Amino acid sequence: MVGAPDVFFKRHEPDTYGNAHPKELLRQITEDVDYLLPLANQHIMSADQFKRETLLQLFRLAAKFEANPSRFSTPLQGKILISAFYEPSTRTRLSFESAWHRLGGDIMSITDRATTGIAKGESLADVGEMFNNYGDCVVLRDINEKSPFEMMDSLRIPIINAGNGLDEHPTQALSDIYTIFKWRPSLVKRRRANQPRLKVGIIGVPDKMRTVRSLLKLMIKFPDVFNDITLIHDGSTKDIYGPRLTEQIDEAGITVRESHNLEAVVGDLDIVYINAIAWIKDSYESYGKSFKLDTSTPLKNSAIIMHPLARGEELSTDLDETHHNWYFAQARGAVFLRMALLTCLVQRTGRVMDVV
Amino acid sequence: MVGAPDVFFKRHEPDTYGNAHPKELLRQITEDVDYLLPLANQHIMSADQFKRETLLQLFRLAAKFEANPSRFSTPLQGKILISAFYEPSTRTRLSFESAWHRLGGDIMSITDRATTGIAKGESLADVGEMFNNYGDCVVLRDINEKSPFEMMDSLRIPIINAGNGLDEHPTQALSDIYTIFKWRPSLVKRRRANQPRLKVGIIGVPDKMRTVRSLLKLMIKFPDVFNDITLIHDGSTKDIYGPRLTEQIDEAGITVRESHNLEAVVGDLDIVYINAIAWIKDSYESYGKSFKLDTSTPLKNSAIIMHPLARGEELSTDLDETHHNWYFAQARGAVFLRMALLTCLVQRTGRVMDVV
Amino acid sequence: MVGAPDVFFKRHEPDTYGNAHPKELLRQITEDVDYLLPLANQHIMSADQFKRETLLQLFRLAAKFEANPSRFSTPLQGKILISAFYEPSTRTRLSFESAWHRLGGDIMSITDRATTGIAKGESLADVGEMFNNYGDCVVLRDINEKSPFEMMDSLRIPIINAGNGLDEHPTQALSDIYTIFKWRPSLVKRRRANQPRLKVGIIGVPDKMRTVRSLLKLMIKFPDVFNDITLIHDGSTKDIYGPRLTEQIDEAGITVRESHNLEAVVGDLDIVYINAIAWIKDSYESYGKSFKLDTSTPLKNSAIIMHPLARGEELSTDLDETHHNWYFAQARGAVFLRMALLTCLVQRTGRVMDVV
Repeated sequence: MVGAPDVFFKRHEPDTYGNAHPKELLRQITEDVDYLLPLANQHIMSADQFKRETLLQLFRLAAKFEANPSRFSTPLQGKILISAFYEPSTRTRLSFESAWHRLGGDIMSITDRATTGIAKGESLADVGEMFNNYGDCVVLRDINEKSPFEMMDSLRIPIINAGNGLDEHPTQALSDIYTIFKWRPSLVKRRRANQPRLKVGIIGVPDKMRTVRSLLKLMIKFPDVFNDITLIHDGSTKDIYGPRLTEQIDEAGITVRESHNLEAVVGDLDIVYINAIAWIKDSYESYGKSFKLDTSTPLKNSAIIMHPLARGEELSTDLDETHHNWYFAQARGAVFLRMALLTCLVQRTGRVMDVV
Repeated sequence: MVGAPDVFFKRHEPDTYGNAHPKELLRQITEDVDYLLPLANQHIMSADQFKRETLLQLFRLAAKFEANPSRFSTPLQGKILISAFYEPSTRTRLSFESAWHRLGGDIMSITDRATTGIAKGESLADVGEMFNNYGDCVVLRDINEKSPFEMMDSLRIPIINAGNGLDEHPTQALSDIYTIFKWRPSLVKRRRANQPRLKVGIIGVPDKMRTVRSLLKLMIKFPDVFNDITLIHDGSTKDIYGPRLTEQIDEAGITVRESHNLEAVVGDLDIVYINAIAWIKDSYESYGKSFKLDTSTPLKNSAIIMHPLARGEELSTDLDETHHNWYFAQARGAVFLRMALLTCLVQRTGRVMDVV
Repeated sequence: MVGAPDVFFKRHEPDTYGNAHPKELLRQITEDVDYLLPLANQHIMSADQFKRETLLQLFRLAAKFEANPSRFSTPLQGKILISAFYEPSTRTRLSFESAWHRLGGDIMSITDRATTGIAKGESLADVGEMFNNYGDCVVLRDINEKSPFEMMDSLRIPIINAGNGLDEHPTQALSDIYTIFKWRPSLVKRRRANQPRLKVGIIGVPDKMRTVRSLLKLMIKFPDVFNDITLIHDGSTKDIYGPRLTEQIDEAGITVRESHNLEAVVGDLDIVYINAIAWIKDSYESYGKSFKLDTSTPLKNSAIIMHPLARGEELSTDLDETHHNWYFAQARGAVFLRMALLTCLVQRTGRVMDVV
């Protein structure tokens, strides 16, 4: 290194990360632990399995954690998390592990499929039976879509699907809807038909991106909020929805439009959700070559951008310092959302509720 | 995922995992901490080094932990475990790490030989000297039989051999005998010659399977209990016992029979121990092609099956729901046995004994 | 294993590791927390950034920890360390992790570059922004010299450079100077010109060895102590100092001699610092073929040998049992030095000072 660098830094955070937003969300939702108790013996496999009221209580609990992070440091004391990332990840793994540590729990990590019994030919059902003896909760990510299901049947502790092939990534979707409600807390009140529609644009293809898939499955549980959705894609995929999702969207009474031209539609959007990278087995294809957000994009003035990250060229760093940037707040909020969900799964809700 | 899965699960455990068995074992052995104190400055290298009375006290302490798991959450507070698995493992590593976490200790893991100083040519003696500064206990597994011995000489903290090549795996054997005594607590009382013999069958070859090797070495310390052993193998190995084990067995006054025909002998056995996979360097050979346990095997009605797991085709999943299945209880008990041993090694016995 | 091994060991430590030395250092420096407070919002990138008085207070705090290790077990409670070793390491990683655990903190480890977002093309600036949400401090080692700088700009939590390519390894240098002052506590008092010079020999090349580079940068902050330095090398590197270091040495008023003949100069040296291994990208070259320390080396009777370890042939194990061996004490002290630095970085100084 040549010359002394400027090594000083500030702990101060941009306003978006402050606690004004979670506090307002906290006020908008009344606490009701009854809707959280059913989470105590469920595996978290799909965005489909959540009821609207349970979702609101999860968001409220996440907001409670985010509004006052240092207050809750012991709810998971004595609990052990098995963090099994057979498909590599830093972001999601550290998000879960940070959430668990923040609440006072202990962690055992598996980060390399090659070092596991699976490499020796052991069945995932036997792996699940083993995990019963070692921990209190499992988080699993694998490139194989069936893995969490194969493990599920022998588990007597909860498992969270942290991404199974191209299928789903439910906790990412929970974090994303949480972020939207933090941005506009009034959305949690059932909206009347004459209120202005929230225009959502999603750049991506559900059948190829588990994040988008899970997100849509959650959005349709709030048809009064998310009733104007445009999917923006390059038209190269025939069936962009994948199994059953079209029926689910229809049943919710929502019309999802499609567009191949980002520039044509972006100026109307309140929320621009971009997720340009799709993992295909052990490599990735970059979807975003023709769709890119930067300072020349004609965004609505009040529009927010969301991205589950990691990002590539599809989301310009020039947007980071603008008020459109809600993707960093999205990552921050994800830790608190996971804290809320994990607390409920391992039956420690009683340690964090105001009224039990 | 197509269609909502059934995501609900039960935390209830089968009766074998209940605390009736450890509680009865607890009653059969009188606590005596004097036999545990010598463990405070020993490395755990071989099943040979344990005295019968020390073993009984370890089993009693393990049973104490298993009878009331939530009672002991702090004995290892402030202690650091160095979990060094140079040979890949998930099962044994998580078993040790879970044990250490359950007792309130902290852990540092090494799971990839390639990232260690050894890859740079550092001697294991120097690695041991380094570990002295960083932790309070080492657990080591390596494909090289000499590794724990090379590390031992410079260590001033205890090391547990968690598997060294084909040589030994002492804590697995401790867990296995613990399981047998949980199953039949009356066995801990010295048995008279006229009492019915416990017939044990071991499917495997000591010279090629460290688990079987260590198991036999422990069994011969209870010659009044384990005096009717049959080794069942395919005859392809010339010297099935390996160095010195034959003399040890003779000195204990035990006759070990051999058989090449599982069907012919299995109907008499009270305990059927199967361990069909042998690790040879970085690959494994499947020993069990001609020896398999399934629902057609003519097991004695009261017989129990044990397997250190992971299992392959040699042990059918159809047996899992039968009362013969003591291999899952075996895995569960192993955590508590390791909790007992680790507590003694790092001089925290005083925090768990009734009388010190 | 044939025959029972001698498995007993002693916890007793050689006198060099006792607490007599840190206690004397503690007495020689008066506590003054004001010099530690500026560390609360600095990244630790280079040895250049430390003031002399801050160094002395860090050494005092390290000595306080080393003199009574069990006294301070909770200062980092609730704090999370992100231990990111993109370049493999066991020694430095475990040293940091042990330090953090000893003080009661929690850790998340990244030990394989291939499993990170960087493998997916994510920028280090984005990785830093992610880390802000997950932990309270980052330790980073990478073969790429620019990595900590690229991460630094987006970080709102402190980062410690644990080795960036060939550039620097500041905490190793801090530990090394700490070791020297533990050995001779009187050196911390400003020395007058007529006092005997401490003769230091460094076997190595600053431009190729980050440890040596950082060490020299710290030594020149004590020109009254380190004013007689000889660099011993084989002459194969043209510019042995690298960027700017020559000017820094001149500005401090120190003359550094060079020698190609270890035998010729070693008999005068009080401190012999050897560091013979240089990492070049993913392989290493062994520098030490022509420079070796063993029992035939004509060392001054009172000379001490230092080596950051891991060692190879350049430092004979025959020297381990001699009083010249201060390299093991050096490794031991490094944990306490890191405890001191980490405590200051995450603003927990108040929990360990006598007077705040």
